Amino acid sequence: MLLNKWLSSVADVGREMLSRKNDSRKSKTLEEYCADLMSNKGEALGTAIANEVATSYQTADDEKKLSFFQHLLEQYSPDPEAVITLANAYRDEPSYDSYVALSEAIEAPRQKLFKRMNMASKGTEVIVALRKDFLRLVKDHPELKPIDFDLLHLLKSWFNRGFLTLAEIDWNTPAVILEKLIEYEAVHSMSGWDDLKKRLGPNRRCYAFFHASLPNEPLIFVEVALVNGLASAIDPLIDPNPYDNSHNDVLDTAIFYSISNCQSGLAGISFGNFLIKQVVMELKKECPQLTQFATLSPIPTFRRWLSHELDNLESRFINSSSRTTLSLMNEVNWPASQEHCDLLQPILMKLCAQYLINAKKSGKPYDPVTRFHLGNGARIERLNWLGDKSEKGLMQSAGLLVNYFYDIDEVEKNHEAFMNKGTISHSKDLAKLLQVS
Amino acid sequence: MLLNKWLSSVADVGREMLSRKNDSRKSKTLEEYCADLMSNKGEALGTAIANEVATSYQTADDEKKLSFFQHLLEQYSPDPEAVITLANAYRDEPSYDSYVALSEAIEAPRQKLFKRMNMASKGTEVIVALRKDFLRLVKDHPELKPIDFDLLHLLKSWFNRGFLTLAEIDWNTPAVILEKLIEYEAVHSMSGWDDLKKRLGPNRRCYAFFHASLPNEPLIFVEVALVNGLASAIDPLIDPNPYDNSHNDVLDTAIFYSISNCQSGLAGISFGNFLIKQVVMELKKECPQLTQFATLSPIPTFRRWLSHELDNLESRFINSSSRTTLSLMNEVNWPASQEHCDLLQPILMKLCAQYLINAKKSGKPYDPVTRFHLGNGARIERLNWLGDKSEKGLMQSAGLLVNYFYDIDEVEKNHEAFMNKGTISHSKDLAKLLQVS
Amino acid sequence: MLLNKWLSSVADVGREMLSRKNDSRKSKTLEEYCADLMSNKGEALGTAIANEVATSYQTADDEKKLSFFQHLLEQYSPDPEAVITLANAYRDEPSYDSYVALSEAIEAPRQKLFKRMNMASKGTEVIVALRKDFLRLVKDHPELKPIDFDLLHLLKSWFNRGFLTLAEIDWNTPAVILEKLIEYEAVHSMSGWDDLKKRLGPNRRCYAFFHASLPNEPLIFVEVALVNGLASAIDPLIDPNPYDNSHNDVLDTAIFYSISNCQSGLAGISFGNFLIKQVVMELKKECPQLTQFATLSPIPTFRRWLSHELDNLESRFINSSSRTTLSLMNEVNWPASQEHCDLLQPILMKLCAQYLINAKKSGKPYDPVTRFHLGNGARIERLNWLGDKSEKGLMQSAGLLVNYFYDIDEVEKNHEAFMNKGTISHSKDLAKLLQVS
Amino acid sequence: MLLNKWLSSVADVGREMLSRKNDSRKSKTLEEYCADLMSNKGEALGTAIANEVATSYQTADDEKKLSFFQHLLEQYSPDPEAVITLANAYRDEPSYDSYVALSEAIEAPRQKLFKRMNMASKGTEVIVALRKDFLRLVKDHPELKPIDFDLLHLLKSWFNRGFLTLAEIDWNTPAVILEKLIEYEAVHSMSGWDDLKKRLGPNRRCYAFFHASLPNEPLIFVEVALVNGLASAIDPLIDPNPYDNSHNDVLDTAIFYSISNCQSGLAGISFGNFLIKQVVMELKKECPQLTQFATLSPIPTFRRWLSHELDNLESRFINSSSRTTLSLMNEVNWPASQEHCDLLQPILMKLCAQYLINAKKSGKPYDPVTRFHLGNGARIERLNWLGDKSEKGLMQSAGLLVNYFYDIDEVEKNHEAFMNKGTISHSKDLAKLLQVS
Repeated sequence: MLLNKWLSSVADVGREMLSRKNDSRKSKTLEEYCADLMSNKGEALGTAIANEVATSYQTADDEKKLSFFQHLLEQYSPDPEAVITLANAYRDEPSYDSYVALSEAIEAPRQKLFKRMNMASKGTEVIVALRKDFLRLVKDHPELKPIDFDLLHLLKSWFNRGFLTLAEIDWNTPAVILEKLIEYEAVHSMSGWDDLKKRLGPNRRCYAFFHASLPNEPLIFVEVALVNGLASAIDPLIDPNPYDNSHNDVLDTAIFYSISNCQSGLAGISFGNFLIKQVVMELKKECPQLTQFATLSPIPTFRRWLSHELDNLESRFINSSSRTTLSLMNEVNWPASQEHCDLLQPILMKLCAQYLINAKKSGKPYDPVTRFHLGNGARIERLNWLGDKSEKGLMQSAGLLVNYFYDIDEVEKNHEAFMNKGTISHSKDLAKLLQVS
Repeated sequence: MLLNKWLSSVADVGREMLSRKNDSRKSKTLEEYCADLMSNKGEALGTAIANEVATSYQTADDEKKLSFFQHLLEQYSPDPEAVITLANAYRDEPSYDSYVALSEAIEAPRQKLFKRMNMASKGTEVIVALRKDFLRLVKDHPELKPIDFDLLHLLKSWFNRGFLTLAEIDWNTPAVILEKLIEYEAVHSMSGWDDLKKRLGPNRRCYAFFHASLPNEPLIFVEVALVNGLASAIDPLIDPNPYDNSHNDVLDTAIFYSISNCQSGLAGISFGNFLIKQVVMELKKECPQLTQFATLSPIPTFRRWLSHELDNLESRFINSSSRTTLSLMNEVNWPASQEHCDLLQPILMKLCAQYLINAKKSGKPYDPVTRFHLGNGARIERLNWLGDKSEKGLMQSAGLLVNYFYDIDEVEKNHEAFMNKGTISHSKDLAKLLQVS
Repeated sequence: MLLNKWLSSVADVGREMLSRKNDSRKSKTLEEYCADLMSNKGEALGTAIANEVATSYQTADDEKKLSFFQHLLEQYSPDPEAVITLANAYRDEPSYDSYVALSEAIEAPRQKLFKRMNMASKGTEVIVALRKDFLRLVKDHPELKPIDFDLLHLLKSWFNRGFLTLAEIDWNTPAVILEKLIEYEAVHSMSGWDDLKKRLGPNRRCYAFFHASLPNEPLIFVEVALVNGLASAIDPLIDPNPYDNSHNDVLDTAIFYSISNCQSGLAGISFGNFLIKQVVMELKKECPQLTQFATLSPIPTFRRWLSHELDNLESRFINSSSRTTLSLMNEVNWPASQEHCDLLQPILMKLCAQYLINAKKSGKPYDPVTRFHLGNGARIERLNWLGDKSEKGLMQSAGLLVNYFYDIDEVEKNHEAFMNKGTISHSKDLAKLLQVS
Repeated sequence: MLLNKWLSSVADVGREMLSRKNDSRKSKTLEEYCADLMSNKGEALGTAIANEVATSYQTADDEKKLSFFQHLLEQYSPDPEAVITLANAYRDEPSYDSYVALSEAIEAPRQKLFKRMNMASKGTEVIVALRKDFLRLVKDHPELKPIDFDLLHLLKSWFNRGFLTLAEIDWNTPAVILEKLIEYEAVHSMSGWDDLKKRLGPNRRCYAFFHASLPNEPLIFVEVALVNGLASAIDPLIDPNPYDNSHNDVLDTAIFYSISNCQSGLAGISFGNFLIKQVVMELKKECPQLTQFATLSPIPTFRRWLSHELDNLESRFINSSSRTTLSLMNEVNWPASQEHCDLLQPILMKLCAQYLINAKKSGKPYDPVTRFHLGNGARIERLNWLGDKSEKGLMQSAGLLVNYFYDIDEVEKNHEAFMNKGTISHSKDLAKLLQVS
């Protein structure tokens, strides 16, 4: 049967304001509505007042928002004197009552405010949007930063992995969600619906996490291609030849070629680790013939690092002959010259292997993508020469792509070695590149 | 059928443990798994270890659970010394860093533990069950009580009104949910599916709140009958004459005749206020002809209070002639005697009106149902003689039922008067009863 | 709108009558509405007039219905003279026009009427109910029988296998459907919801065919138990010991222990063959460890046949010594006597094997269940002594149950041998029983 | 999210072929598979053989398809001799048996074949596609035409209004359906997803009929704009100014501005009449403030007719002065000249009114859109000067658009007057235009 509104959570439509007669209230400020919401009126009329706070916030301009955040800092912070007093009382007699008193004193009142705001219709959406605003405005107003602790603390709790649902996204998914993929794709951008349809085509998969309170908003999504053997280039994955079915019978590898966070209001909450591992589980179950799970990833800060090393005349990574050869990369469209490529390939491949394995920043891998996958327990498997010849690929990754390999049986061991000893798990292939003279 | 895959939400099936080779781990204790979960291993393998904690907890007996709670108290409480030090630092210099340090120090480590447990498959279910266990066991172990502050604090945040979905429940609802109604109905019990079907019959409605993480578990539900005028007796509502359609064309009143909380693990989180008001909104929208919204409620502690007053020879409510008449209630099946009824009715009606309006406990209405509805902004509308002749109805409420009336335009005013001045809103009918000589 | 009515399609609510001002029309007879519906008015106002026909039919009593059927016979039959004329014209010149003229002349006008009735809201439901009425009434009015050809012809076309959807039924299924299972179960009856829940419990499956126009009505359903090895008795399947999980790890056999047609208005349309085979496919996919698919079936006319043979003193199946022993079955509760059983078992088992393999009725197996499964390509696998000691089991099947085995690779061969040569496929076990002296 | 398993209908995935060992069968021709399907093998293995017929058909080229249709004509037509014989027998003795024999003799065997083909996975889709092929090929092979009677007869029965579901289509609809709208829009074409999104924007509605067997294929859809007063131009409807909300508070009129049939394989089955009327019902229910329901329609053969009249020097519609003025329309982009417009407007408006009301073809309105809406019971309400200045609009309708008005209370009367007397219902406005001198 035809289900009319597809995913639309019809039920929530009704969560409307109680009708409110007193129109004088309409003229209250955002700060006054907040005071109402925190009062005991907030209990009887929670949803109604929360809606007024939400609407008032949503219609505010940046100046008003800034002054609202200032207000939150000044009026809705915990009182350290009270905390000290109650902490002393609790230390002296750690009873239930002293514990409760201390605990309540320390929670910033703005947390309570945010919780009550969440009762509004689409309250969670408003709070995620509020944090997005906040992160934008805090850049010029660092004194507001403490508020972010409370926002992040709350959102981490609400967007706990246990509250997320994994959904497969395909051409049967509502357009309202699909258009978000086009918007949010952060690795290999899509120019529109035609690109999107290719990524949801045969032997392609897409999975996202959703939260019940943001039904039309993916939180993070990953794009996967089912192929034969490790993929070495991005183009055949995102722009496949529709007539080539040659390897369909021997699909043994799932390639995670793009993973994008969607909600800047949820920055700082990590979803990627969980997503990759659950998708591995899903795929193993759905396609038992899959035996390998790996990424095809950019190396986004490789050229930035390379440029630093080139500037550093005492770089331990680059000798003078390499330096000369590397200058070929200054030529426009150097990948088109086979001659240049022949000279550059051995040097760049070795340097990139060194970069991935040895370049550090605060003791961790220099490259953010490396940090992410190693932190998840993956190992560096293979470097792919000119796997991404797009402008962005050349500018950031010198056209290279790397496969991080997820061997489920090794993930725990790799992770612990990485966390405890900083060990960079890598394949023999990578080790060989390091040896290249 | 146009049931797109999108709806199937198959995906969660896969939220299984990563396969774990090391069988030695199988022998760890619950406490050891918790330590693992709190370690940085918990980050890489969160879901897997959380599953082990959950399974280990679920298979524990009461003795083990008690010792686990003891462990939570001893090992997972905040450190007051650290709090004091950091609160001082924060007071001296309220920077972001000092704020974060203090905030993290004060959150009991067991809150972090519960949050990580929540990542397990059905983690939220396990935590709600854990709190149910806890509330049972804490009775004999009051020293554990501080743990409940953290559990309740977390669950209140997770079961925020903004995360609840209102659903109508009818005969098209899955059996797995319907059987819960039979189990949880707390006011007018149902003996089985036949009773249930009557409550979901023509001109009956049932609404419940659900949370996305407990999809088969209503949190609270309310049963409603659409009738003509205020209902005065329970039997026609729960066991209607199927051949009587006489008043179907003039249904102007929605009677909320039963409201039941379902999850004892969520005790202390109030859902009823929100539920009633949202259902009023829903019904107004669906059935514009409805003009009155009221309950038909028991008066559950009326006879307990009456008994106290009878024991108290100086009661200001009962004079000696009443006292004599009231002894008729000791006779078995007194409501069957018209003579007894004629004598008892004026006395009981007046006493009950006095009870509802004047009897107090810690300054609030003595009757818990009165406290609830008055707190929501309702007013006491009408007392109904022998509206519930069931054994329970006679034992608790002396067979009386009361209508609390929800006039949406008055709710806010009533609520504030009740909260600020203890005003008991009531109708002229009730006022008259008080005057009866 | 409020959270989904589960399967209910909101959109269809609107398929209501166009408002019709002319109230005089309200007084038309069913026959007059039918005339309207067949007129060109029926085209502009199809749904509205169809609704009036449907309502008028539904509110008719048996007498009116009978006279309506009489009317259909007299006024809505094809005209043989016209058919002869047009058939001659077509034979003489088989053009498109002559073909259309002939084809339209031969279709009984009542088919067109039924098709237009189907446009009514829930029209298909009404027509299925109409045929149910018809089959009841035709018994005493055999002259009406030709109408059934048209009804059956139409319903066969509409309930074509291609329009059916297989759905798994479990405890998540809406109650409105589940209660139908209790009502329609025809083999091993259920006394209520508790029985039903057992049949949908662990390692149990239930599948049904549905048609989009009867969303709450299963057409046929089959109950399956996943067990270890061929099941030999019904009780462990329908009333399993909840504490016995001994064989859960070696479930290799799916036992189809009950299959029930639900719609008497669809009598004569065969769904069972398709259902069993598709369920075999489903189960193979869902549970790859299953290697055997078989029924556990009653032998419903065994005792009737036995009784005929006992009456026939020259029966070629029963000798005099058997005859004597068989009289033990006249004793109440004979299965409780081990002594009786020891005497009866060899005789009944052999007789039943003979019955299944050799007893015929119009050249086909005497037993209707045998005819059904053999016609589907199954083979007779094993006889089970006292597999069903219920009163019905003893009265019909002498307490025996038989397994029909579906070997997908043999189904076609078995079917053809059965259809062409009447071959009764059976196992060596059955063959041996025939040899018992 | 409360997405119960029941919705997932996993089950249809499994309607696959029974595995068939005998590979020799793979080499059969389409005609041989058909013979198998018609044999009694077709009963035991219906779905499997039907799948082979379907696959074999789908992979055939046009030559093979043509020879297949030839085969259907020769081998699967009814036998007129048998029909004559059996019709005589039925006339002589109209018994059940003679009725059945005659009825079965007259149904073309190809109907039985199509019904059995329908059992294949996606069988209905294949048959609709087959008819699409057929309609293309029959043009050059008119002798095949009788086959179409059987196809259409069957498809009309299967796509009976009673089996269609109305669904609202919006931005929450799966992309797989939305892309069909872009493809099938036949009145005001869409260039892509951006155009589509506008048509599904605020105060826009789209409804379609679906059939359960073609879940991703709308059969017909209508686009509606909710506006204030009768709309007079198409651009503001399909490319609205997103910043103009001026009239949102007084939306009283639903304009049906585009209606497109989608399935050429279902040509000859009328869905539009039902669709418009049901959408009127839906909108009335959802938006009670709507009081007018009308189309904004092209007049697609107006200029063709005009051109005929211009060629006809004795046209009773055009005098010589008009003739001269009309020649201004030969100029490129004449609507840009206010002067030309001033001259043309009175003449074209009057001519178009005459065209709509008086121009006939076989006694019916000349314009197909007029025939359709008048046949549904609408009246001609208003002509709109230069309502559609697109190239197509100018070429076909001389830039004019017309509103057909659906007054539900008049629909029946209008329809009957139109059918019985050819009355063209029209407004006073139209009547006035006729009077213009």
